[in-house]
Amino acid sequence: MNNFGLNIWANKNFIIEDGEIKLNYKSMPSLLEIANEIRSNNVKGPLLLRFPHLIKRQIKTLYSYFYKAIEENNYKGSFNAVFPLKVNQFPSLVNAVTTQGKKYNYGLEAGSKAELILAMSKTPKSANITVNGFKDEEMLTLGFIAAQSGHKITITIEGLNELETIIAVAEKSSLRVPNIGIRVRLHSAGSGIWAKSGGMDAKFGLTSTEIIEAIALLKNANLLDKLTMIHFHIGSQMSDIAPLKKALREAGNIYAELKKMGAESLSSINIGGGLAVEYDQHEKAHARNYSIDEFSSSVVFLLGEIMDAKNVSHPDIFTESGRFIVASHAVLITPVLELFSQDYQEKLLNFKESNPPLIEELRELNKLLTNANCIEYLHDALDHMESLFTLFDLGYIDLQDRSNAEILVHNIIKKALYLKSSNPTNELEQLQIKLQERYLINASVFQSLPDYWGLGQHFPVMPIHYLNTTPLRAASLWDITCDSDGEIGFNPEKPLYLHDVNIDENDYFLGFFNVGAYQETLGMQHNLFTHPNEYTVNITDTGYEITNHIESKNILDILASIGYDKDEILNKLKSDVEKSTFITEKEKSDTLTKLETFLNQNGYLRTTN
Amino acid sequence: MNNFGLNIWANKNFIIEDGEIKLNYKSMPSLLEIANEIRSNNVKGPLLLRFPHLIKRQIKTLYSYFYKAIEENNYKGSFNAVFPLKVNQFPSLVNAVTTQGKKYNYGLEAGSKAELILAMSKTPKSANITVNGFKDEEMLTLGFIAAQSGHKITITIEGLNELETIIAVAEKSSLRVPNIGIRVRLHSAGSGIWAKSGGMDAKFGLTSTEIIEAIALLKNANLLDKLTMIHFHIGSQMSDIAPLKKALREAGNIYAELKKMGAESLSSINIGGGLAVEYDQHEKAHARNYSIDEFSSSVVFLLGEIMDAKNVSHPDIFTESGRFIVASHAVLITPVLELFSQDYQEKLLNFKESNPPLIEELRELNKLLTNANCIEYLHDALDHMESLFTLFDLGYIDLQDRSNAEILVHNIIKKALYLKSSNPTNELEQLQIKLQERYLINASVFQSLPDYWGLGQHFPVMPIHYLNTTPLRAASLWDITCDSDGEIGFNPEKPLYLHDVNIDENDYFLGFFNVGAYQETLGMQHNLFTHPNEYTVNITDTGYEITNHIESKNILDILASIGYDKDEILNKLKSDVEKSTFITEKEKSDTLTKLETFLNQNGYLRTTN
Repeated sequence: MNNFGLNIWANKNFIIEDGEIKLNYKSMPSLLEIANEIRSNNVKGPLLLRFPHLIKRQIKTLYSYFYKAIEENNYKGSFNAVFPLKVNQFPSLVNAVTTQGKKYNYGLEAGSKAELILAMSKTPKSANITVNGFKDEEMLTLGFIAAQSGHKITITIEGLNELETIIAVAEKSSLRVPNIGIRVRLHSAGSGIWAKSGGMDAKFGLTSTEIIEAIALLKNANLLDKLTMIHFHIGSQMSDIAPLKKALREAGNIYAELKKMGAESLSSINIGGGLAVEYDQHEKAHARNYSIDEFSSSVVFLLGEIMDAKNVSHPDIFTESGRFIVASHAVLITPVLELFSQDYQEKLLNFKESNPPLIEELRELNKLLTNANCIEYLHDALDHMESLFTLFDLGYIDLQDRSNAEILVHNIIKKALYLKSSNPTNELEQLQIKLQERYLINASVFQSLPDYWGLGQHFPVMPIHYLNTTPLRAASLWDITCDSDGEIGFNPEKPLYLHDVNIDENDYFLGFFNVGAYQETLGMQHNLFTHPNEYTVNITDTGYEITNHIESKNILDILASIGYDKDEILNKLKSDVEKSTFITEKEKSDTLTKLETFLNQNGYLRTTN
Repeated sequence: MNNFGLNIWANKNFIIEDGEIKLNYKSMPSLLEIANEIRSNNVKGPLLLRFPHLIKRQIKTLYSYFYKAIEENNYKGSFNAVFPLKVNQFPSLVNAVTTQGKKYNYGLEAGSKAELILAMSKTPKSANITVNGFKDEEMLTLGFIAAQSGHKITITIEGLNELETIIAVAEKSSLRVPNIGIRVRLHSAGSGIWAKSGGMDAKFGLTSTEIIEAIALLKNANLLDKLTMIHFHIGSQMSDIAPLKKALREAGNIYAELKKMGAESLSSINIGGGLAVEYDQHEKAHARNYSIDEFSSSVVFLLGEIMDAKNVSHPDIFTESGRFIVASHAVLITPVLELFSQDYQEKLLNFKESNPPLIEELRELNKLLTNANCIEYLHDALDHMESLFTLFDLGYIDLQDRSNAEILVHNIIKKALYLKSSNPTNELEQLQIKLQERYLINASVFQSLPDYWGLGQHFPVMPIHYLNTTPLRAASLWDITCDSDGEIGFNPEKPLYLHDVNIDENDYFLGFFNVGAYQETLGMQHNLFTHPNEYTVNITDTGYEITNHIESKNILDILASIGYDKDEILNKLKSDVEKSTFITEKEKSDTLTKLETFLNQNGYLRTTN
């Protein structure tokens, strides 16, 4: 049975039972029943479901492995974590993160002014705020206001000028000074060989020379007691743990050196994010070569070892993993609207009394094709097809001839693929891709899976029902944008097989998994498709409750959001209908009602069959 | 003098004069004076400038070349064009397009429900609306409402089910039936060889067999008189004209065949978009191998020839080029916030009385480097560097030693690059990239240049002033997102040289050109950076006027747009300050004022030095 790699990417969050995919938690509802309940209220289009218990699970996992490592290694520093808001700033998610993280004092990280405002309004005073990214005087002043307001806030400087501005603000204001962190530029980031790595030319961080200058600046300004943290980040979705270990050695030694240089308040190392998520449906351990256990043990052990060797007390550890915490919490459910079979059925063949000679030859090839001759006959058929297209383009054959040729060649390809299915040639595999069934999904790849467009990142995808039957159709997925990039293709090594469902009579839903990180904020409004309807689903012992329903923007609001006047548009359309002729007043008023209904629906497709 | 490829990409829209880049139109203002006027009103951050005269120019170019070709070829059909809204739906742009296009009856194309509503409210009744993309019954009904309202609208069907729905709507409604187009699936799209091309497995279009079925369906429903158009599109940013010619032959013959099959109302061929824009700064004719003259002549000549051969009257021609019309109209001006030199100045060397032996060796290498030995010495230096980093990571040398090593090796690399600058090795070129000066620009690549992130598309970029002096610093550009993907790098074959400006004392602005197509709607809100401040600039004989100022969202509005309650956030932050201790009432009230000011500014950086 095809389980669509559930054992690889699902981390036991989901199971297959009774032909459906179910939440592996408490009352274990199926995604289908949740989707059907939502759709029973006349909701169409894609649905984004959030499961807070999966956030809770990840937060707990992160903390408990670090707590375990701290205990096992007799480590003296504490463990602290913050959620980087850039990964997902949407309110229902942020509220779930802060609620589920409360008992751990899980904090928030901000990378821009808007994110800092969000962090200041949502972080409990007992949790940490960290601030990264490039900052102006306004943003640094916000950091002072946060400190003054009682937040535990650390501002990481990305360059000496930011430090100079902090010093200037501290001089002219009597607000509390926030804690200061220094982002260090590591030579070991990436491959680890300085001259070739991404280390020394990375976008962020101070060189050793700049760090020494920073210490001098802080000393002069009497602010060295505010330097509490050094910070590094070796990149998102870290696949290999080796560079992290190198980075820890390097950063650990910088920490110890700074302590020796008089940075007495320095008390923590922030190791950034990078904990990878498994997105692959076909190969286990593709995304990362380490477990969370190895990750936490390595960090704790190495930092302890370095500090002990240099006789420096153990620093507190901060992490900023975001993808690891929230990727799994969200599932995108997309209805399949249509199967685009290429309509080359033999019954549609329509021969004339006298057909062009090449058509007659195709008929013969089709009739006489055997396992022994099929590759040769296939080549002949493809060659004839080219010739027939040329004849059509030059006006020698007509549209019916062309249609007959298409059907015959298509049949020959299909037969050849069948005959050679146990051992297909490369050429046949390429033809197989072209014959993939196209499943049209009611969603926008640009809006809901931008990393597929930008980075070619595949997300786990599978039907949420019909799982008792073996899917047989090699598929590719089309979205509803009118952009040819809005297609998710699958190569023959990693195919997606879907079911042959009669969409006119039955629903067929696909779920995209692990879409909770980055996809929402990066979502593009191509063709003016906006963030889909979203729901938070709390699973209880006896059932589940659906809360925080946030509707996708309706069409008038979409247009208003890019600057149009809703009333002007509505009035224009109405007056155009009212002025129109040859329909009755009743029909006019029905049409106006319909028009208003359409304008108050979201832009996704509704009634398609 | 470096003109940054202006002769290649600017199409004479801009010229360099008096060291500044100027609009080559009427009063010829410089971009700098426009930017300075805008910034004199305390505006910071990136600026998006729209120039309607450049839209006018492109529309005029498109129509006049087709008019010329029609006259020269004694062609009997008309020429019609529509602007595809998906390329840019922003109001100031759409208003400029419809205003400038009015005298040509330039229409609009819609690819989604929201775009269709926009087209219905903005298209003059004398101009055309075309509708592409996947459609539900609601969207098709909107097409009927548009027709009823007096619009010249043609709905292109992408599959037989859409045609069935049109027929069903026509049966149950007495609204006017819109014109119907058929998207044809061409075998010649792309490379032109059926079995390997993008043709037969393209996302859109009906096969020959389906077209024959469509005709039968229309005949049965007595709607064959509504079939007016066949449509194809062979892809955006078409670099080569050969596939278009093949596609024209194929589509032309399909058109003629359908006429012969009784489609008497069929009157037009829609050739879609695809006219390419030049984005390259280094190589002429990189983007396309044809002129607009060849393009229009080919279309008109070929269609005439095919129809004459088949004795069918000449069809009206429709085009849907969008990029060609609007790419040039917008310029993004980004202030440079900072130059991140890697701070490895020799004056910062700080040797001890006794230095580690490898440091002493580096000093020797640095001192004795000559043209003859520099490659060898460079390799020695890089090797020592690696060893010294390892010694640091293992705790054998201190931070000052590490800083000295960084500075020395950096100097050796710089000297080697200088000595070998006339004939650099591959290795030196790679090092050169690492030593590029980093220019931090006040913009988000994700928001303003998404095609760079998604497709690696470079846009022409250059300083808008200082053009009397030769820029010497090989640069890369950092944006202000806290994402390492937010860097625009330049490889040694196509470098960007910028000026060495003291940003603490002088402004330095970069302009990104040809950003008017796609970038705005695809713009991502990474780190919550939003669409920048935009301005429409009308250039007159004596000066220019700045209109349609639309401000970038302020921070509270950004948060509101993703679902937060503005008042709740504001009240929370204010009450936190009010409850805080150890500052005077005066300081509290000053802080609250400052806070409100910050929250009402946009998220880009303001005061950085």
